Amino acid sequence: MPATPAASDSEQPGVIMSREMGEQPEALRRLLDRGAAPIRETARLIAERGPRFVLLTARGTSDNAALYAKYLLEIRLGLPCGLASMSTTTAYGAEPDLRDVLMITVSQSGGSPDLVAATRSARAAGAITLAVTNNPDSPLAAVSEHHIDIMAGRERALPATKTYTASLLALYLFVEGLRGGDGTEARPLPELAAQLLDRQAEVRALASRYRFAERMVITSRGYGYPTAKEAALKLMETSYIPALSYSGADLLHGPLAMVDNISPVIAVVTDGRGGEALQPVLDRLRGRGADLVVFGPKEQVDGASGGFVLPTAGVPEELQPILEIIPLQLLAYEVTIARGQDPDAPRALAKVTETR
Amino acid sequence: MPATPAASDSEQPGVIMSREMGEQPEALRRLLDRGAAPIRETARLIAERGPRFVLLTARGTSDNAALYAKYLLEIRLGLPCGLASMSTTTAYGAEPDLRDVLMITVSQSGGSPDLVAATRSARAAGAITLAVTNNPDSPLAAVSEHHIDIMAGRERALPATKTYTASLLALYLFVEGLRGGDGTEARPLPELAAQLLDRQAEVRALASRYRFAERMVITSRGYGYPTAKEAALKLMETSYIPALSYSGADLLHGPLAMVDNISPVIAVVTDGRGGEALQPVLDRLRGRGADLVVFGPKEQVDGASGGFVLPTAGVPEELQPILEIIPLQLLAYEVTIARGQDPDAPRALAKVTETR
Repeated sequence: MPATPAASDSEQPGVIMSREMGEQPEALRRLLDRGAAPIRETARLIAERGPRFVLLTARGTSDNAALYAKYLLEIRLGLPCGLASMSTTTAYGAEPDLRDVLMITVSQSGGSPDLVAATRSARAAGAITLAVTNNPDSPLAAVSEHHIDIMAGRERALPATKTYTASLLALYLFVEGLRGGDGTEARPLPELAAQLLDRQAEVRALASRYRFAERMVITSRGYGYPTAKEAALKLMETSYIPALSYSGADLLHGPLAMVDNISPVIAVVTDGRGGEALQPVLDRLRGRGADLVVFGPKEQVDGASGGFVLPTAGVPEELQPILEIIPLQLLAYEVTIARGQDPDAPRALAKVTETR
Repeated sequence: MPATPAASDSEQPGVIMSREMGEQPEALRRLLDRGAAPIRETARLIAERGPRFVLLTARGTSDNAALYAKYLLEIRLGLPCGLASMSTTTAYGAEPDLRDVLMITVSQSGGSPDLVAATRSARAAGAITLAVTNNPDSPLAAVSEHHIDIMAGRERALPATKTYTASLLALYLFVEGLRGGDGTEARPLPELAAQLLDRQAEVRALASRYRFAERMVITSRGYGYPTAKEAALKLMETSYIPALSYSGADLLHGPLAMVDNISPVIAVVTDGRGGEALQPVLDRLRGRGADLVVFGPKEQVDGASGGFVLPTAGVPEELQPILEIIPLQLLAYEVTIARGQDPDAPRALAKVTETR
C-alpha cells in the first residue's frame, strides 16, 4: 500500500517526514519498554540452536540496518556474516545448504515479494529464519520462523527515518540477547535522541553549505559505516544530490580521485575504534584541501571545516549509530527544503517497493 | 611500490592504461593455457576440506572481482558467502570462529597490510585461506595456505584493467574446479575479448554523450552487478564523474528519485536470468524518460536510447562479466580523454594502497 499523503499534510513540504523524525525518542522508548523482553526471548530460542553463520537480507534503508547488525554480530559475537545477494535465489534459483545458518531479513513493511520468497526458500533450505519488521501481520513475518516487531508505529513518509533507528535498536537488543545481555546500556538513547532533535537550527545552518552542491561524498569506518550509507541514501531520496558513500579504506582505493574542493565530504566519526581507524583518511582529505564536515566528537569537529558535535560521552561505540543518523536525517530534510523541494514527495518512490 | 609512469610513457595521456587494456586477450589466454591446471589442483585440495561457508575479502577493483565470485559460489555451488567487513578484525579485533570457512582474499598487488592482517587472523581462527593475486611473491601469498596466481603481468596503470578480467577468470576456473569441471567453456574468451577491443571507435562515439555529464547511474542485476560496480569505479577513478552503481532492485528502493533526464543511466544487461530480472527496472527507467544506454544483447540495445552490443551468443551468462567490462573500461578511458584529462594519472591514487 503506497503512502498517499493526505491533502492537509502535503500543503506544507516535509511535514510528514518531520513528524516521523520527531517520533524517534518515543519509538525508541517504546521498544525498550515493551519490545526488549520478547526480543530477548527470541534471541534465547535462536541461541539454543547455535547458528554458525548469519546471512542478512534486506534492501534500501533496511539494508543499512542489516549492515549494522553485521558489525554487531561479527565484533560482539564472532559470528561470520554475509549480506545475501537476493537474485542468486530469486533469479537464479540457487539452492544453498543453509543448515547452521541464521537468516535475518529486515524490512520495514515486510511486504516485498522478493524478501518473502528469499526467506521462504532459506527456511526450506534449513536456515533458522528471523524477520525484523514494523508489521507483525506482514507476509514476511508469516513465512519466518521468528519475528521481531520494531514497534515504530505506521510510517507514512517515503524516506524511512523512525523505522531505521527502531530497526537498529531492535537488532542491538537481539544481538545483546544472543550474548545473554539485557541491553540496559541502551536506556539513555531516547533522551539523547530528543536532545539531538532539539538542535535542528544547527543542522539548518549546516545545510546551507550544500544547497548548491552537485555531489557529495560520505565516509566512515566500522560502526559508523552503515550511518554513512544511510545518510547518503536519505540525501539522494529527498534532495536528489548524488551522494557517494565509502568506507574510509575503500575511499583510498579509488574514489579519492574524485574528491577535491568541489566534492564536499561528510565524515561520520564514531567515538571509538572505528573513528580511530578513520584518522589516516581524514588526514588525507585535509591534505587535499577537501571541504570536510565531521559528525562526531568535539575534538574531531574542531579539526574539520565544520561539523556537528555528537553526544557520545558515555555511549558505547556500538550504540552510537542509533544517535548519529538523526542529525543526518535532519540534514537531508533541511537541504531538501533549502533547495525548494518536498522531502515528503520524492519522485518515483512507493512505500512498499515490490521487487521480485 | 607506487607505479611511476616513465617520462616517455606519460607524454601521451592514457598510453599505459590503453596498453594494459590491450593486453587482456593475451592475459586471459595465458591463464587458460598455463594457469588452469594449477588452479584446478588448488580447487581439488580445497574441495576435499569441504568448506561450508565462504568469506571474501578485498578492496577496490578486487572487491568487485570478489563479488563476482560470490555469485558463482552461491549459484553454481550453493555455498553461502559473505563479503568480509575487514575493520571488524583489523580495528575491533573480532575473533570469529572460522572452522569450515573458506576465506578468499583477492588483491592485485598482494601488498595491502590490512588484507595481510585479515588473512593471517582468519587462518589462525581456523579458516582455509586462499589468496588470489598478481604476485606470487607478495606478503599476502606468503600468509595464505593456498595461492592462485592470476598471471596478468605487471600492471602499471593506476586504474586496474587486465588484473580485473584475469581475476574474474581465475575465480571462475577455481569455482569450476570446486565443481569438478575443467573450464573449457572459457576457451573462446580471449578471441571475443580481442574483438571487443577492436571496437574502440564505437565506444569513442558513445563517450561523447558523457563528456559534460555531472553524474551517472550504472545498474545491473545478478552476474552483471559486479560489472556495474567496476564500471562505476573505473569512471570515477579516471574521469572523476560521480558514478553511482546499484543493483536494479536497490535502485527502485530509493535512489530512483535521483534519476531523471539529467542523470544518464547505463544498464549492463546480461544475456540470461540476470538480464531478465532487470527488465522491470528498465521499463521503469524508460517510463521516466531516462537517458538509458545499454551494454547487452542487440534486442536490448535496440530498445534503449543507445548502447553497445555485446557478443553474448553462446557465452554462458556466468562468463559474460569477463567480456562486458571491456567496453566499459574503454568508455572510462574515452570519456576521460574527451574531458581533457589523463587516465594514467588519477589524482591521489597509489598503486598499492596501504590501508590498515
